[in-house]
Amino acid sequence: MPLVVQKYGGTSVGSIERIRNVAKKIKKAVDEGNKVVVVSSAMTGETDRLIALTKELSNRPDPREQDMIVSTGEQVAIGLVALALKELGVNTISLTGWQVPIITDNVHTKARIKKIDKHRIMKHLDEGKVVVIAGFQGISEGGDITTLGRGGSDTSAVALAAALNADVCEIYTDVPGVFTADPRIVENAKKIPVISYEEMMEMASLGSKVMQIRSVEFGAKYGVKIHVRSSFNDEEGTWIVEENEEMEKVVVRGISHELKESRITLVRVPDKPGVAAKLFRALGDRNIVVDMIVQNVSHEGHTDISFTVNKVDADLAEEIAKKVIAEIGAAGVERNDKIAKISVVGLGMKTHAGTAAKMFEALYKEGINIYAISTSEIKISCLIDEKYAELAVRTLHEAFIENGEGEV
Amino acid sequence: MPLVVQKYGGTSVGSIERIRNVAKKIKKAVDEGNKVVVVSSAMTGETDRLIALTKELSNRPDPREQDMIVSTGEQVAIGLVALALKELGVNTISLTGWQVPIITDNVHTKARIKKIDKHRIMKHLDEGKVVVIAGFQGISEGGDITTLGRGGSDTSAVALAAALNADVCEIYTDVPGVFTADPRIVENAKKIPVISYEEMMEMASLGSKVMQIRSVEFGAKYGVKIHVRSSFNDEEGTWIVEENEEMEKVVVRGISHELKESRITLVRVPDKPGVAAKLFRALGDRNIVVDMIVQNVSHEGHTDISFTVNKVDADLAEEIAKKVIAEIGAAGVERNDKIAKISVVGLGMKTHAGTAAKMFEALYKEGINIYAISTSEIKISCLIDEKYAELAVRTLHEAFIENGEGEV
Repeated sequence: MPLVVQKYGGTSVGSIERIRNVAKKIKKAVDEGNKVVVVSSAMTGETDRLIALTKELSNRPDPREQDMIVSTGEQVAIGLVALALKELGVNTISLTGWQVPIITDNVHTKARIKKIDKHRIMKHLDEGKVVVIAGFQGISEGGDITTLGRGGSDTSAVALAAALNADVCEIYTDVPGVFTADPRIVENAKKIPVISYEEMMEMASLGSKVMQIRSVEFGAKYGVKIHVRSSFNDEEGTWIVEENEEMEKVVVRGISHELKESRITLVRVPDKPGVAAKLFRALGDRNIVVDMIVQNVSHEGHTDISFTVNKVDADLAEEIAKKVIAEIGAAGVERNDKIAKISVVGLGMKTHAGTAAKMFEALYKEGINIYAISTSEIKISCLIDEKYAELAVRTLHEAFIENGEGEV
Repeated sequence: MPLVVQKYGGTSVGSIERIRNVAKKIKKAVDEGNKVVVVSSAMTGETDRLIALTKELSNRPDPREQDMIVSTGEQVAIGLVALALKELGVNTISLTGWQVPIITDNVHTKARIKKIDKHRIMKHLDEGKVVVIAGFQGISEGGDITTLGRGGSDTSAVALAAALNADVCEIYTDVPGVFTADPRIVENAKKIPVISYEEMMEMASLGSKVMQIRSVEFGAKYGVKIHVRSSFNDEEGTWIVEENEEMEKVVVRGISHELKESRITLVRVPDKPGVAAKLFRALGDRNIVVDMIVQNVSHEGHTDISFTVNKVDADLAEEIAKKVIAEIGAAGVERNDKIAKISVVGLGMKTHAGTAAKMFEALYKEGINIYAISTSEIKISCLIDEKYAELAVRTLHEAFIENGEGEV
């Protein structure tokens, strides 16, 4: 009997009416002969409402108590989903993270799953029950409620699918799948039928918000077949699977863009060993995650160092950079909040040359200046003026996807 | 070091501002040198909101899933109280029912506490922490979340005070204590400084809503000193303690009234053995709790049997009564929803004669007809027309409390 893990996001369970629809979908999977484990997020807006309550009391709410409060969102949702299933005559039981238990470390508000005990779930599945599990949460070894951080329900679902050796992990969401570019920008964007974990991780980290990146990592690590699809219809969505040779034939799988970064540049930095280390150690000590780093060869003993950070961290990063230049004797710090990062992603780049050239040419033809470039084996990212973001995405989509199915 | 259990009801934690006030009260107790365990209800309205969600999905929500959902109300409240305490610099930790654990039977939505494991609480108290515990909830031996039913947070608090051998269990509420009568009806109603468990149980069961009756039973069983007081000021409230000789000097401690009952009468019931048993078995089988039962001596082989039930059960009770009279051959069923039960309660009745006579005379003087009478060792209840309820309460308060301090 096939075992399916179905994960429903906040919009899918956003109202009583939608919860009824989710229950119908689950019943369909049961009627088709599957064992079903359901993972639910909190109803849309609920997590934000609860966090707002904590913020009324404290600027920096104690993370353990915040998890105690915020984890109730999913607890309510799983109870409601179970009630809706029972109304349809489906045998079911809901379980919180601690009831499973899903064991995590004790880093509250961004815990990582360490172990899932599958015995209680298997027992209920053997009793013929649909098991509805709270996403986003777990229990630390000390017995405290933890949460996995934003988007953590995806990770819960994939981790459960791995632990239970499920045949598929279906991620139900409010979009039909993963697209070749943001459909709000590119009219001709197409749903991608199959994508590799690696490509999906690049897409996720580059701004395609369909899935949380950690959950894709988890899927890759344990070989969980993930199917991202709409909770509002029965169409096939996007399968995220292990890469195969066939996949490499497509050079560019998709175009993604990211607007939420700022660029900080240290100007005329003396080209001495340890300078970069000093800067990024200082940023790391304040928990600032740096995305792109660009340092070019030096001229006359000096160089510029640029890096990008999330906009919310930009003030602090700029402050730190100013302290560092005082120590190392650079000329100054520049900051630009109006930037966009545009990327092309595809497994085929590994074996096809010329993708970078084609990308730069396409941008150049539209008069779009490139501030910085960063590459990995399967992606190329360019930093450009924010105002050109949509134009760049459309141009690259046309060049790589519409004309030539991603081939160079 | 004295150990205090403080219980805060829904109105006391009904807003972020009120939660801040509660935190100040708790800090005061800590600063005065007490170890403090806090029991919190859900914020006002939250339990009703959650129950309404379940009712949208199901007319008779599965009780296990209902408990899963409803128990989140207290979980949010304890997290918020803990955050407010931390803002005041008080070392604290919140615990759900299952984290304590508070072990209950598995009768969902009205579970009974079987055992409280005090080890985790004691550990945190020894660490110098205020322990904030979710009221109203526990965990069954099967690992499911249970709730104790409406008002269950009082029971949680008293049971915790018993388990921890606390010096006092303070019940903070939105009224200043227990009154000699409802102050909204009787202008001269006075706060009762000390009352016995037994009197309080009678008062609670007779309609004085200050405390849940089961919690008072618990207090009596384990000798927990209970102090009911206002969360909005520092005044002494009402102490509920074991009875002593001094208490018996006051014949009538208070006057209570109850408007939510209906009376059902079976007319001209044949006076045969087993008739009453048949009726009350039939009612019991449908989980209808019967309050007063009145059957007089029979005339010419027939008698009338009257009983009262909660108004919400009256339709069903009437239906059952009609079925039963068909079987036993009575003349008919009468029903009256416009009744009130007025009671005088006091330990002194045990040793003082004449209370009943004084009560009936007082009512008679006001022209109030008595439909039925029921008595216990320490209370006398009369069923009267609903429209005379306030008049009766004022009259009896004047007779027993204002004139003569409860003496006959």
